[in-house]
Amino acid sequence: MALDLRSRHIKNPVDVAEYLFRRLHEVGIRSVHGLPGDYNLVALDYIPRCGLHWVGNCNELNAGYAADGYARVKGISAIVTTFGVGELSAVNAIAGAYSEYVPVVHIVGYPSTTSQRDGMLLHHTLGNGDFNVFSKMSTQISCAVSMLNHQHEAAMLIDNAIRECWLHSRPVYIALPTDMVQKKVDGDRLNTPLDLSYPPNDPEKEDYVVDVVLKYLHAARNPVILVDACAIRHRALKETHDFVEKSGIPTFVAPMGKGAVNESLPNYGGVYAGDGSNKGVRERVESADLVISIGAIKSDFNTAGFTYRISQLNTIDFHSYTVRVRYSEYPGVRMNGVLQKVAEKLGKLNIHPGPIPSNEIPEVEIMSPEPTITQAWFWPRLGQWLKKDDVVITETGTANFGIWETRFPENVTAISQVLWGSIGYATGSCQGAALAAKEMGIKRTILFTGDGSFQLTAQELSTMIRNKLNPIIFIICNNGYTIERFIHGWEDSYNDVQEWKYKELPFAFGAEKGSVLTYRVETKKQVEELFWDQEFASGDTQKLRFVELVMPWDDAPSALKSTAQAAARRNAEA
Amino acid sequence: MALDLRSRHIKNPVDVAEYLFRRLHEVGIRSVHGLPGDYNLVALDYIPRCGLHWVGNCNELNAGYAADGYARVKGISAIVTTFGVGELSAVNAIAGAYSEYVPVVHIVGYPSTTSQRDGMLLHHTLGNGDFNVFSKMSTQISCAVSMLNHQHEAAMLIDNAIRECWLHSRPVYIALPTDMVQKKVDGDRLNTPLDLSYPPNDPEKEDYVVDVVLKYLHAARNPVILVDACAIRHRALKETHDFVEKSGIPTFVAPMGKGAVNESLPNYGGVYAGDGSNKGVRERVESADLVISIGAIKSDFNTAGFTYRISQLNTIDFHSYTVRVRYSEYPGVRMNGVLQKVAEKLGKLNIHPGPIPSNEIPEVEIMSPEPTITQAWFWPRLGQWLKKDDVVITETGTANFGIWETRFPENVTAISQVLWGSIGYATGSCQGAALAAKEMGIKRTILFTGDGSFQLTAQELSTMIRNKLNPIIFIICNNGYTIERFIHGWEDSYNDVQEWKYKELPFAFGAEKGSVLTYRVETKKQVEELFWDQEFASGDTQKLRFVELVMPWDDAPSALKSTAQAAARRNAEA
Ligand SMILES: Cc1ncc(C[n+]2csc(CCOP(=O)(O)OP(=O)(O)O)c2C)c(N)n1
Ligand SMILES: Cc1ncc(C[n+]2csc(CCOP(=O)(O)OP(=O)(O)O)c2C)c(N)n1
Ligand SMILES: [Mg+2]
Ligand SMILES: [Mg+2]
Repeated sequence: MALDLRSRHIKNPVDVAEYLFRRLHEVGIRSVHGLPGDYNLVALDYIPRCGLHWVGNCNELNAGYAADGYARVKGISAIVTTFGVGELSAVNAIAGAYSEYVPVVHIVGYPSTTSQRDGMLLHHTLGNGDFNVFSKMSTQISCAVSMLNHQHEAAMLIDNAIRECWLHSRPVYIALPTDMVQKKVDGDRLNTPLDLSYPPNDPEKEDYVVDVVLKYLHAARNPVILVDACAIRHRALKETHDFVEKSGIPTFVAPMGKGAVNESLPNYGGVYAGDGSNKGVRERVESADLVISIGAIKSDFNTAGFTYRISQLNTIDFHSYTVRVRYSEYPGVRMNGVLQKVAEKLGKLNIHPGPIPSNEIPEVEIMSPEPTITQAWFWPRLGQWLKKDDVVITETGTANFGIWETRFPENVTAISQVLWGSIGYATGSCQGAALAAKEMGIKRTILFTGDGSFQLTAQELSTMIRNKLNPIIFIICNNGYTIERFIHGWEDSYNDVQEWKYKELPFAFGAEKGSVLTYRVETKKQVEELFWDQEFASGDTQKLRFVELVMPWDDAPSALKSTAQAAARRNAEA
Repeated sequence: MALDLRSRHIKNPVDVAEYLFRRLHEVGIRSVHGLPGDYNLVALDYIPRCGLHWVGNCNELNAGYAADGYARVKGISAIVTTFGVGELSAVNAIAGAYSEYVPVVHIVGYPSTTSQRDGMLLHHTLGNGDFNVFSKMSTQISCAVSMLNHQHEAAMLIDNAIRECWLHSRPVYIALPTDMVQKKVDGDRLNTPLDLSYPPNDPEKEDYVVDVVLKYLHAARNPVILVDACAIRHRALKETHDFVEKSGIPTFVAPMGKGAVNESLPNYGGVYAGDGSNKGVRERVESADLVISIGAIKSDFNTAGFTYRISQLNTIDFHSYTVRVRYSEYPGVRMNGVLQKVAEKLGKLNIHPGPIPSNEIPEVEIMSPEPTITQAWFWPRLGQWLKKDDVVITETGTANFGIWETRFPENVTAISQVLWGSIGYATGSCQGAALAAKEMGIKRTILFTGDGSFQLTAQELSTMIRNKLNPIIFIICNNGYTIERFIHGWEDSYNDVQEWKYKELPFAFGAEKGSVLTYRVETKKQVEELFWDQEFASGDTQKLRFVELVMPWDDAPSALKSTAQAAARRNAEA
């Protein structure tokens, strides 16, 4: 048999599946998300043997979201699905990871290469003998597609896929046919760890760019730094932190950049998003004579509807694939090296202070006799309660706009899908993030989701319970799709949702009484009491905490209001 | 403006969205499934105005499954999703409808044509300015893709899409950009109903085939009829019924053909699926000297792992696109016309009787002192309880193999996804099927789902409650993925699921006490009591009924056991 012939030449043979999972372990993965299916069952046997934990999600879309959340905390993640039905269920989550630069290794259990070759009419096919339809779909949302159809190239393809995943920080697709799982590959390859380092910039070119940047920096009388998502996703945080701290330049974040900067620094100035900026920030950023933009993604929701007013003439743009100084382009120069050298060679700068952001509740909210929990009151108040190292997840809706008003303590990891914006994401993501946090000794994972969004992926609460995770979950109960109402259909029934008894769900999902603490808060006073409650706030309890946070149906953070208006206008534009 | 210029020439202008929804109403759709999103909100305003009901599902995958179920009962259905995030969430459901020939009109709310043209960096995009990625994915699982980007062709494209959907009995994709929703098209077109008739066969060719078929039929000494899925999906049921009744030939169904034949006819003989056949059926079918096969889909699960033993030399194959007599092909000849003429011209035939299927419980099960509800006992027993016109949905797992052993009363509609086999499907499908049934005055919709499968799409129970539907739901509680255990991983934890308190869910999902009846049955005696309970069995109550049906974790219908073995063997085959 071909198997034996080939294998005889291998000194230290290991099975393809073992090779794959050991490589995943090597890059830091400890838990694998997904669902079984008959085309992946045998491969799943290798997971515990390779020191990995099988999560066992409730469905594949949720598993994909969870893998995304896990990767955002841990650096990279993996999900296993089954051919056709499983992988397609996860496609939206994978597209989201692609859109937002999250490295997820998607392993799909395929029918055997023989069945494929013979075009068998198998279950989970379109009935047309075509076994490439689904991988073709995934090509568009993966930075590499590896079909492990041949023993001799399997190890190489696996290594390549994981490396691409890491370096591009985007999903890859690995097709593992049932008959390849136990084929032998060269285990000695595993003695050499994967090289995950970025190819360095051309040193001469890099130095040139550093000089140009420094020149403009020194000429500037009033520079600001603006940090965005790609600083996080392309792993330039260390360089960014050094630069921000050493330079002392007033620093702002775009919404997708929340968490990229230590918000307790004296030169941190708040969220800039054009019309949706924190108070005082817009004026400050737009009056700067130089904006050093790091890792920008200027999408509609990240800019409150394209309302930036910053001229490219005053901008230096740092990206993972280029640096742009005013209109001069330096393609192929990755930001990391440049930022590091700029920080090293800074010297003295000409700096005006930025605005001082705060966690203070706005005056009107404090003065208001209304007990209602308003969006304007809640989000700044939350900032006072958050702790160093918290992982904070906000769902598309009032939550991921509200969080713009929350000033973070040091080292908070903020997770939200501002660009892709698929609702239901946050609950799935919370499962993965909480698991990654647990593995890393991070104490609190905190989720804010809308009632509408929660309903899409609610069963992943069951996976959290099953995996004994202890996140703190807030369901914003405001009778439906409030963000949509602000765009169109203010009181239309399509923006209502079925009223659930949310607090009963953890127990219906099998949580033992006492292992989950549930709460319902309807007034500011109750929020205050909750925030002061030690057991609720604890990072050390094993208990999952689940809060119904009641807010008015017609209330939204101000940034959401202006962004929604802009979106409605754009939709109507002919 | 272009809008006004164009519209001025139209005598009876109606908005594109109105045109679309009125066409959907015309072909029989009364409820539209889906979720809102800012790219479809304005279009949703037209739904009630066009006499349609908006279902408001919990997520798009479930909405897609529901639309599939609705179409299987009502003939055609529609789902509305939003660009990117919404449509991709539904992709697996649409692929299932494509695979199994279910006509679903998928309407996707797109960003405005201006935003598309300008390649704006909008939410729900991959951030690369490419607005065609998702429609490209859907091309592979749709029989037509209509991008409504131009006012002058919108009405024509809509008509074309709906016609293709109906005729090919497969999903179509309609992209509706926000700025096209209110563009004007010629409303007078609506005075001419869509022509949904199949193009007739060439009469000379058809007559020729009829003669050939009749020749073999009269020569046969011992013919049988075997009816499969495509007889249902390609709307050849009337012709099939006439032929079966008039000819009196012993008639069998493949698993996917369950419900296609009146199982109370004296010449109905049971389910044929090779090794997985009902008792006595295999011998009878395989000893026939002529098998008249109508609408076959010979997939692995539909044939218990390709275990048919029927020679093509003894077969006449009727399809929607061809007729095949032994090895003679008649491409382009649709079965419907041929079958009808064959029934008309039949004359006297040479017929042996078939086996007599029954609802009797197997002897060993009756004799067993064990109170346990076994699979072998339950499914035949169910046949005694079912009623004429019931809609019966079975999920991939023990249920959709078990149902092979259930003899139906007259006119039962059986729904299951034997080819695509995506778990979670049945629960979503039940929502759509129950709604369609209600619209048509059909009294009972009955769902059998596994505990594992139910967890994927459980929230659609909420949609049933919200829409005041009254299906009878059985959750087979057997501690996890039993069907998978029979393939691989007998006691492996990846085949376990979190133990839910299923009966609590309807109430957590907001059902009022009293509006849902819940039950738990653990013994045969309790099943008997349940089946005799008038309120439980009623077709007239408004109450949803929800049963935990407890079965052993290691028990499966015999057809599942042999099919699972075949699947495991095939997976390992190198
Ligand atoms: C998968 C998916 N479907 C639909 C949408 C459209 N959508 C965006 S936000 C939203 C409503 C969110 O409501 P909720 O979670 O209650 O948030 P709220 O604004 O009320 O806090 C919807 C339906 C989407 N973004 N993603
Ligand atoms: C979307 C999807 N994911 C995974 C699978 C693989 N799969 C097929 S059947 C099954 C288990 C079904 O378990 P359950 O519903 O409990 O049925 P049982 O056999 O126990 O009655 C799984 C995981 C699938 N078919 N579809
Ligand atoms: Mg809400
Ligand atoms: Mg089960």
